[in-house]
Amino acid sequence: MPLTSDHPLLDGRTGTSPLVRAYRGDRPETTPVWFMRQAGRSLPEYRELRVGNEMLDACLTPSLASEITLQPVRRHHVDAAIFFSDIVIPAKLAGVEVAIVPGKGPVFANPIRTAADVAALRPLDPEALAPIREAVAMTVAELGSTPLIGFAGAPFTLASYLVEGGPSKDQLRARTLMYTEPQVWATLLNWCADIAGEFLVAQVEAGASAVQLFDSWVGSLSEQQYVRRVAPHSKRALSHLRGYDVPKVHFGVGSGELLRAMHGIGADVMGVDWRIPLDTASERLGGDVPLQGNLDPALLGAPAHVLEAHVQDVLDRGLSAPSHVVNLGHGVPPETDPDVLTRIVELVHG
Amino acid sequence: MPLTSDHPLLDGRTGTSPLVRAYRGDRPETTPVWFMRQAGRSLPEYRELRVGNEMLDACLTPSLASEITLQPVRRHHVDAAIFFSDIVIPAKLAGVEVAIVPGKGPVFANPIRTAADVAALRPLDPEALAPIREAVAMTVAELGSTPLIGFAGAPFTLASYLVEGGPSKDQLRARTLMYTEPQVWATLLNWCADIAGEFLVAQVEAGASAVQLFDSWVGSLSEQQYVRRVAPHSKRALSHLRGYDVPKVHFGVGSGELLRAMHGIGADVMGVDWRIPLDTASERLGGDVPLQGNLDPALLGAPAHVLEAHVQDVLDRGLSAPSHVVNLGHGVPPETDPDVLTRIVELVHG
Repeated sequence: MPLTSDHPLLDGRTGTSPLVRAYRGDRPETTPVWFMRQAGRSLPEYRELRVGNEMLDACLTPSLASEITLQPVRRHHVDAAIFFSDIVIPAKLAGVEVAIVPGKGPVFANPIRTAADVAALRPLDPEALAPIREAVAMTVAELGSTPLIGFAGAPFTLASYLVEGGPSKDQLRARTLMYTEPQVWATLLNWCADIAGEFLVAQVEAGASAVQLFDSWVGSLSEQQYVRRVAPHSKRALSHLRGYDVPKVHFGVGSGELLRAMHGIGADVMGVDWRIPLDTASERLGGDVPLQGNLDPALLGAPAHVLEAHVQDVLDRGLSAPSHVVNLGHGVPPETDPDVLTRIVELVHG
Repeated sequence: MPLTSDHPLLDGRTGTSPLVRAYRGDRPETTPVWFMRQAGRSLPEYRELRVGNEMLDACLTPSLASEITLQPVRRHHVDAAIFFSDIVIPAKLAGVEVAIVPGKGPVFANPIRTAADVAALRPLDPEALAPIREAVAMTVAELGSTPLIGFAGAPFTLASYLVEGGPSKDQLRARTLMYTEPQVWATLLNWCADIAGEFLVAQVEAGASAVQLFDSWVGSLSEQQYVRRVAPHSKRALSHLRGYDVPKVHFGVGSGELLRAMHGIGADVMGVDWRIPLDTASERLGGDVPLQGNLDPALLGAPAHVLEAHVQDVLDRGLSAPSHVVNLGHGVPPETDPDVLTRIVELVHG
């Protein structure tokens, strides 16, 4: 798709950035690179800023969310910022009671498990998104020509947290609800789709140049379950962006078998985890889908020459797709040496 | 392969059982069925027996291990017992300090992370296996013509626990060691292979009619990593059984992309998790490998008609393989209503 510098949203500011060009299928001179969870615990400046600030408070305090979003861009010179937030934020803004318990993750006071629980969920008041809009606007003002990627969790992953009441290994309780009460499940996922979609729209309207929909736990589903009970809702989440000309990236962990179905929800770019090589992923997608990924986070602790060979291998395999944005195959592990990330950016750009 | 009732080990006792026949590629009149983790927390009689008995003590007390192994056979009339044990037992018997922390899993006092740590690992004294032999002998005496399946964790899964020091999400530290110190990794995995192999041999010599090697966490690996850094060691584990004519089953969670490579270690039967249908699995394996699986544990809480349709679907798809043993696609969740398991056995047998 040709870039239109007169587009009201992209306005030329980030439209010619390597990231947006690559997301649109073009091959810029240098391959763009950023890291999922680049804003976070691997950075000392992040840990410092978080002292005395609860995770969800940090997400909802515009100056903090913006500063945390900017930190990895300043330090690593990555090609994009990803908006600092949490998968549960749209639910919290819609009135669901949730806290992040350190070392555990989000914990919901009242898990959503019955038709009555789902019926009691309220829509997201557009006013509640004000701190998100403000944080994004502050961030893009500072970023200049570096694009900001908007962030949201996909309906299945958000619903899994809500049903389980927190993190879980196989999303067993959520998947049981999917079978047991398909109507309750569909209503819940539509609610999740709408709040995720509205959360993304708020970020795009405030200046995000692309969005990524994270379906972190989708790898616990069979393709049949995914296509029938999840994909329509993920599609609904992205449909909120109809009319906004921003690239849409989609990613899930352990989703090698689901790539084609996940692409089918209306994604422009597919993120790939570390389990399958990019050339295999590209083949599964028909060879014409821009890819993002897929350095193995386990390599971040490996000796320099091993890591360098891995980066080169990922770059080589990325040539099988029309375009490629380098990323990890999962989020940055908290114990990562940030200098290693900076070095990867230099390698990819060099 | 024709059954030989004159085999010194199978001796006709279990050689014509539906389970052993199906494992050998035959189709008995009724499809056999058992459940991974059938001996365990879903059973009230198990929870009663465990009061005041630590998990690993229960594994190493022959009367307890035997009784726990027998409980689900008595209750559900499944076609096999699976020896009640834990993946870490061979390491414990070789002198590694480990405890099972309720709600968390195995925790190692001293994780194995360096060449020196690995060099300090001692071989498994055959004498240490005495309680295992005794428990198995007691169990098979009681089981009569119902076969006992021997149990062991595969080298990668056991090594992951040892390196991480306990359970982990993506086996990140273990996989980093794999890249960082390939020699240390190989030595560690060989040690794990040998203790797992010896653990299986002890069970077979005491009367187990088949074995299952569990590579629970193998789904965190790419196929390339698996083939290069794991498969040779899994093969080594099974090579200890050379000379013992027992069917060897192999299983890992999330291993759809690895099925063919996992079969290549010398497995006779492949267990399949719930993520891919049995007909897809069979096709990937060339159509001539007996399969075990793959009811979705999430269905155990579904209404009867939904569960029944799922059982029928799994049975239908199992016809794509030369033979089929019904099982879950993962272990029995602790909160399972045991009556549901009994009902599944009736359905499969009926």
